[in-house]
Amino acid sequence: SWPAVVVSAMAAATTNPIREIVDVRRPQPNPALDTIPLSIGDPTIFGNMKTPAVVVEAMHNAIDSFSANGYPPSTGYASARQAVAQVYSSAEHPLTENDVVIASGCSGAIDLAINVLVNPGQNILIPAPGFSLYVTLAAARGIQTRTYSLLPDKDWEADLEELDSRIDGNTAAIIINNPSNPCGSVWSAHHIRAFLQVAEKRRVPIIADEIYEKLVFPGQPFHTFASLSKNVPILSTSGIAKALIVPGWRVGWVVIHDRNNVLKEVRSGLVRLSQLILGANSLVQSILPAVLHSVPQHYYDSITSQIQENARICFEGLSAIPGLKPIMPRGAMYMMVGIDFGQFVGVSDDADFMQQLMADQSVMCLPASVFRMPSFIRLVLTLPKGKVEEAVQRITAFCASRRPEIQ
Amino acid sequence: SWPAVVVSAMAAATTNPIREIVDVRRPQPNPALDTIPLSIGDPTIFGNMKTPAVVVEAMHNAIDSFSANGYPPSTGYASARQAVAQVYSSAEHPLTENDVVIASGCSGAIDLAINVLVNPGQNILIPAPGFSLYVTLAAARGIQTRTYSLLPDKDWEADLEELDSRIDGNTAAIIINNPSNPCGSVWSAHHIRAFLQVAEKRRVPIIADEIYEKLVFPGQPFHTFASLSKNVPILSTSGIAKALIVPGWRVGWVVIHDRNNVLKEVRSGLVRLSQLILGANSLVQSILPAVLHSVPQHYYDSITSQIQENARICFEGLSAIPGLKPIMPRGAMYMMVGIDFGQFVGVSDDADFMQQLMADQSVMCLPASVFRMPSFIRLVLTLPKGKVEEAVQRITAFCASRRPEIQ
Ligand SMILES: Cc1ncc(COP(=O)(O)O)c(C=O)c1O
Ligand SMILES: Cc1ncc(COP(=O)(O)O)c(C=O)c1O
Repeated sequence: SWPAVVVSAMAAATTNPIREIVDVRRPQPNPALDTIPLSIGDPTIFGNMKTPAVVVEAMHNAIDSFSANGYPPSTGYASARQAVAQVYSSAEHPLTENDVVIASGCSGAIDLAINVLVNPGQNILIPAPGFSLYVTLAAARGIQTRTYSLLPDKDWEADLEELDSRIDGNTAAIIINNPSNPCGSVWSAHHIRAFLQVAEKRRVPIIADEIYEKLVFPGQPFHTFASLSKNVPILSTSGIAKALIVPGWRVGWVVIHDRNNVLKEVRSGLVRLSQLILGANSLVQSILPAVLHSVPQHYYDSITSQIQENARICFEGLSAIPGLKPIMPRGAMYMMVGIDFGQFVGVSDDADFMQQLMADQSVMCLPASVFRMPSFIRLVLTLPKGKVEEAVQRITAFCASRRPEIQ
Repeated sequence: SWPAVVVSAMAAATTNPIREIVDVRRPQPNPALDTIPLSIGDPTIFGNMKTPAVVVEAMHNAIDSFSANGYPPSTGYASARQAVAQVYSSAEHPLTENDVVIASGCSGAIDLAINVLVNPGQNILIPAPGFSLYVTLAAARGIQTRTYSLLPDKDWEADLEELDSRIDGNTAAIIINNPSNPCGSVWSAHHIRAFLQVAEKRRVPIIADEIYEKLVFPGQPFHTFASLSKNVPILSTSGIAKALIVPGWRVGWVVIHDRNNVLKEVRSGLVRLSQLILGANSLVQSILPAVLHSVPQHYYDSITSQIQENARICFEGLSAIPGLKPIMPRGAMYMMVGIDFGQFVGVSDDADFMQQLMADQSVMCLPASVFRMPSFIRLVLTLPKGKVEEAVQRITAFCASRRPEIQ
């Protein structure tokens, strides 16, 4: 008889923190109430946010042309790379299509960036709280992760002293994520410059995950890491998933911001790694030149003002609840809410909070331990306003039912 | 100053045999003649082969629905997996959506299959000649490859004694590719059964790359490996790239054919690995139920009969040339042509042949050393008939100009 086939160490090491908690707790809704999903960062679900008409039109044209069905180059169509390069180019640091590699979503871009820079056994620094994919990708490759803290009381700025102390001779890259999932924070130019100084002092390149760059609330200043870097080499990653409300289309990119001419080998390494899978859908790549520069600003404004209004509703509603401490975001599509468990009866941790809130009120949130920040929960802010108002009411009722004085 | 940033061992080890030869030889066309590209396996280039209307229509509908823009599950939409499962299901071995993982092209499917089964330091067996991606993926992960020979004089059947002799305690999988790139061969049921016997005797699972399954010449019998496997566990990989003439759309799949219930860990490993990148474009995934079962057979027949007619033209034309030995394919979109260098003056190997043919006649082929079969060249058979006839004439002229008696 056949022995069971053994899986590789890579498959065994690949973990998904969200699935690990959610699958263990298996939150079940209250059957009497429809579920309000504040857990999934997918803005397409309710139809209140839609990719703009210019994108839809460009896709129809691409399909009818029959000219974007073939294999693009492994790094992406030159026209697509050029369109992306233009977005980030400046007089001081001009970029060309050779500074861009198209990838299968921003996830694929982060995978490329980590794989080109880091060997198994080396370490990378990641933010806590932070997007769980960084740990998943690193663990699959046998790469160590070390966290640096984002400080809730300082608008989620990084603890730079701690960051510095966690870097050692085996540190191959620092990952930053700005605007942040799960925090919704947008760092100031001042903080970014201070962060860059640490990287420069320790000579560590940065992977800048800026997928939420278009989702900054109106009036908030935003700066890419590369725009402020004089000396630190940066691989920045982004894509169309969040800005154009098409996460399923799977097109993202890595941009090579070489400073001091130190990324020559990295550039050719990225080209070689791009040949492993042949990344992103050709139709979607082919429309980048038509859409990246023609989506009107009022489209982004309409998205971000919906998110901002939802943030305001949550912030005001949840601030009034004893034991909850929402932190107002400035961008992305999330809000973190701190929980003081001393103020609740029978709720022992963030996963417990999620599970009971779901069981009582059919509101699904994510316990922030999946982002390495227990004692917070994360709320998604892309739902229609009515759903968000309803969710706040239900959370209020849930919290009231767990207040010590009532028990 | 910053030291140059060092790339990972993975990036350094990732090689592309085609680029290695083509970039070194840098074949330049004769400026007086337009180039005929018999080198690239992309059937979309000339417009003579087009994805069918039902596919185009389904994509337009998917875009207008706004309902397939979000994140699919990491393994793919259940409806897409179900549609794929139906294609391969049989009464004896029924399949469900849980036996399918959608991936970013067949390339992504092969990557998943290798990664779930094989550890760095272990080995896999691959066909020679064979598709170069197997070596590229394995090398990137520190996996050894060992070749087994396909025999040109036996319709490219595998040398099964050699196959057996190359298996050892570190062999984690055997890759087969049927119909074959670059051979165009389609194995008989008898040969597949004999091949399976070797795998069964040595208890090695098979990765069956069957991406060309729909491109079998009219009247030729074709059998998937899984349909003939009683005991050997198989991960089969395929996709829509070649069958539907949309290689740039990047949707493929792995199908888990468990026999004897030995792939339980592999199944969950594949699910976990699928979470690393989030593979395939959601729009294209969403149309699989509508198109997989409704593309009419006459569409496939029109594609394969064009390829077969081109094969006939090449076979007849090139058979008449002293020193060339074309081998008639039965499927896929390629023909291998053996070269007896003793019959040519000043042409020392297959790369030389490619380069000089390009320089004189602007016909681009691939030297089969990129497939580990030097002394052959590979021709692509998807061009319009007129181009193929022209190419045969030019190859005839080139060969005549290199005949010993003329020099
Ligand atoms: C911080 C961050 N980076 C990257 C991604 C992945 O983006 P994509 O869908 O383009 O792979 C996400 C998605 O949630 C994210 O939150
Ligand atoms: C044998 C073989 N397998 C797999 C592939 C890749 O298919 P896809 O484009 O779906 O990744 C090819 C493409 O040429 C191929 O020839």
